[in-house]
Amino acid sequence: MRKPAARPRNAFYAQSGGVTAVINASAAGVIEGARVHRRHIGKLYAGRDGIVGGLTEDLIDIAAESRATIKALRHTPAGAFGSARFKLKGLDQNRAEYERLIEVFRAHDIGYFFYNGGNDSMDTALKVSQIGATLGYPITCVGVPKTVDNDLPLTDCCPGFGSVAKYIAVSTREAALDVASMARTSTKVFVLEVMGRNAGWIAAAGGLAGEKAGDPPQVILFPEIAFDEAAFLARVKQSVDGNGYCVIVVSEGTKYPDGRFLAEAGTRDAFGHAQLGGVGPVIAQLVKDRLGYKYHWAVADYLQRAARHIASKTDVEQAYAVGRAAVDYAVKGMNAVMPAIIRKSSAPYRWKIEPVPLAQVANVEKKVPRDFITADGFGITASCRRYLAPLIAGEDYPPYRNGLPAYAKIRGKAVKRKLRTDFVV
Amino acid sequence: MRKPAARPRNAFYAQSGGVTAVINASAAGVIEGARVHRRHIGKLYAGRDGIVGGLTEDLIDIAAESRATIKALRHTPAGAFGSARFKLKGLDQNRAEYERLIEVFRAHDIGYFFYNGGNDSMDTALKVSQIGATLGYPITCVGVPKTVDNDLPLTDCCPGFGSVAKYIAVSTREAALDVASMARTSTKVFVLEVMGRNAGWIAAAGGLAGEKAGDPPQVILFPEIAFDEAAFLARVKQSVDGNGYCVIVVSEGTKYPDGRFLAEAGTRDAFGHAQLGGVGPVIAQLVKDRLGYKYHWAVADYLQRAARHIASKTDVEQAYAVGRAAVDYAVKGMNAVMPAIIRKSSAPYRWKIEPVPLAQVANVEKKVPRDFITADGFGITASCRRYLAPLIAGEDYPPYRNGLPAYAKIRGKAVKRKLRTDFVV
Repeated sequence: MRKPAARPRNAFYAQSGGVTAVINASAAGVIEGARVHRRHIGKLYAGRDGIVGGLTEDLIDIAAESRATIKALRHTPAGAFGSARFKLKGLDQNRAEYERLIEVFRAHDIGYFFYNGGNDSMDTALKVSQIGATLGYPITCVGVPKTVDNDLPLTDCCPGFGSVAKYIAVSTREAALDVASMARTSTKVFVLEVMGRNAGWIAAAGGLAGEKAGDPPQVILFPEIAFDEAAFLARVKQSVDGNGYCVIVVSEGTKYPDGRFLAEAGTRDAFGHAQLGGVGPVIAQLVKDRLGYKYHWAVADYLQRAARHIASKTDVEQAYAVGRAAVDYAVKGMNAVMPAIIRKSSAPYRWKIEPVPLAQVANVEKKVPRDFITADGFGITASCRRYLAPLIAGEDYPPYRNGLPAYAKIRGKAVKRKLRTDFVV
Repeated sequence: MRKPAARPRNAFYAQSGGVTAVINASAAGVIEGARVHRRHIGKLYAGRDGIVGGLTEDLIDIAAESRATIKALRHTPAGAFGSARFKLKGLDQNRAEYERLIEVFRAHDIGYFFYNGGNDSMDTALKVSQIGATLGYPITCVGVPKTVDNDLPLTDCCPGFGSVAKYIAVSTREAALDVASMARTSTKVFVLEVMGRNAGWIAAAGGLAGEKAGDPPQVILFPEIAFDEAAFLARVKQSVDGNGYCVIVVSEGTKYPDGRFLAEAGTRDAFGHAQLGGVGPVIAQLVKDRLGYKYHWAVADYLQRAARHIASKTDVEQAYAVGRAAVDYAVKGMNAVMPAIIRKSSAPYRWKIEPVPLAQVANVEKKVPRDFITADGFGITASCRRYLAPLIAGEDYPPYRNGLPAYAKIRGKAVKRKLRTDFVV
């Protein structure tokens, strides 16, 4: 807790890491929140391409954007201001980056830093707060949670996840109907590869496509469960024998018992190049080789995290709410915190936002607990379903023009630079 | 033209080939159409798993389905009655299959045959009509057009295509925003593989994602244009240099100048297995090897043709309309015809349904004309855009329950068999 600033200070907002269908809704929350706190927050700048814009003094003047554009960010996927895969190193390794950031903040009288990202970003926000104090430039740093991986601790869920979860659940249900309707004479096994390198939350969401035992997907492969080839093949065969087909949702991070990713199976093409595909084709080929079934596979890749057209209403509301809350916390002088989503009840679903210390969030990864996965390792339990169901609830369709979603595009007017020094990232 | 039957005859409806997001809307059109023509049509049966159900005398009693279920078929993707990849051979090669079908039709007093499929199915419907006459069992055969490939002649477009086109256009726009927002520090090239083995209509639809020159997708690869590796790589480099990134939509049927599919590039894994992936990863790897850019790729596969959640309203309406029209034609005694969609104007979009002879539809494939593709072979022209735009117009969202689309499931009550003979397909 810090004493609120006596005069308005400027604020810096940056998007970080892999973007989502709703990270711009959080941006809208921050921007509209800052607007109602003019007594504390002067100008609001965004980093062009995230923290890279901060380091290179490439700031976007948000005041130059129309209110309609900001409103439309709520229904626009991806990072409207640009995001970056750029992790500031530890203080010991590269103090220069932190010092440069403080230099830019000082030049633009930035007293508030809102960092919209996942695990790494929460760690960075914490460090910026600490180094600022050390360098005699106290700055209020608030993290805004965002990650499709749903792997942040302390918060019940992460904005971005609910929409991917909905997309994967809907797509699995639809593709399963396709496979089921043609299985007699055509494809018997369908494999859908989904994101999730270490945590299987997105794969788990595929399980929502079915409503009762035996419904597709008949197999889910989680990064949390070591891949048991024999048990897997037996389950696929059982499903094809019983249902006529088998739908498999596989997490990109599925691993062999020895820890190797299935996607890095060491396969090479004729030129010696490493295997092109992801885990989806690896699983499909395994089924073909060992059981002989005709297969199809899909890799949703960016389609899943950009699919604003089928975003979860709950997710959009939470993404906006954490943006607003971040500003509320900052102007109250709360430092090094993150707004977390606290579940009050599952049915009916009720939630609230509360601050949690960044120090307890940074670098902790929340995986799917074992009791959310069925004993056989191939499905989700009733408690997992209770947890996931409210997160995909509700539709929040974007407006359409000529048959396509009308997504916002920012002007992106640059703030006049004040420093004479350049910084190469 | 045949004299309308003096007494009601029963009817047989079958779904054929790859299913779509709207083939069940055509089924609803046939079913609701038959209901208003009770003077001509007695009972309506559906083949379980398409024509296979016809051959094996496995008929579904549509009267056992509730009106609510039939209504819900309009918003349910895939083949509710089951579809089949099963092509009846030529009359010379396998007359037994045709004779069996007529035997089943005779046993159930079936005087109308509605076959809902693509090129092959239109050919089958025509042949059934001919062989019926030869065997002294005249039957009125009407084709109901369906194919995501949009490759049937005489009809302006094919039900099923508009919804895939919308899905691909929307997904391309969304993924492009994702790539653009992170390109500075992450993925530079994104590849989306779409369906279309011989005709590039679906790939062309990806072009609708952009609105002006330079907008993503910067490259579209069509089956109609021989793959020019040097020109392709130059274009990708130009886009990355100019925009910071490049979005590529590639048709699964893209070929080398010698006619080989890119997806069959002869690559092998360490065990000598043929290349697992489709053309998407092949293109991505080529870019990586030759230009060094970080890439991501997605393969939409069944997700694209099952995506009823983002169906085109125009497509749904046309799918239903061709089903209704097929029944109208049949009861008027029109034989061996198909309802075709005739475009009256593009802006405003106006269309009507007219019958065309199956003999002129069967086995003719409509590809993307050269003047719909830009001179460089990598984009769509203004005339292509004018053609495609109305086909993706309008949204027709399914109802949702618990965050997921509530799709119909039929009871599928079997009609009592009358024949003692079995038929093995």
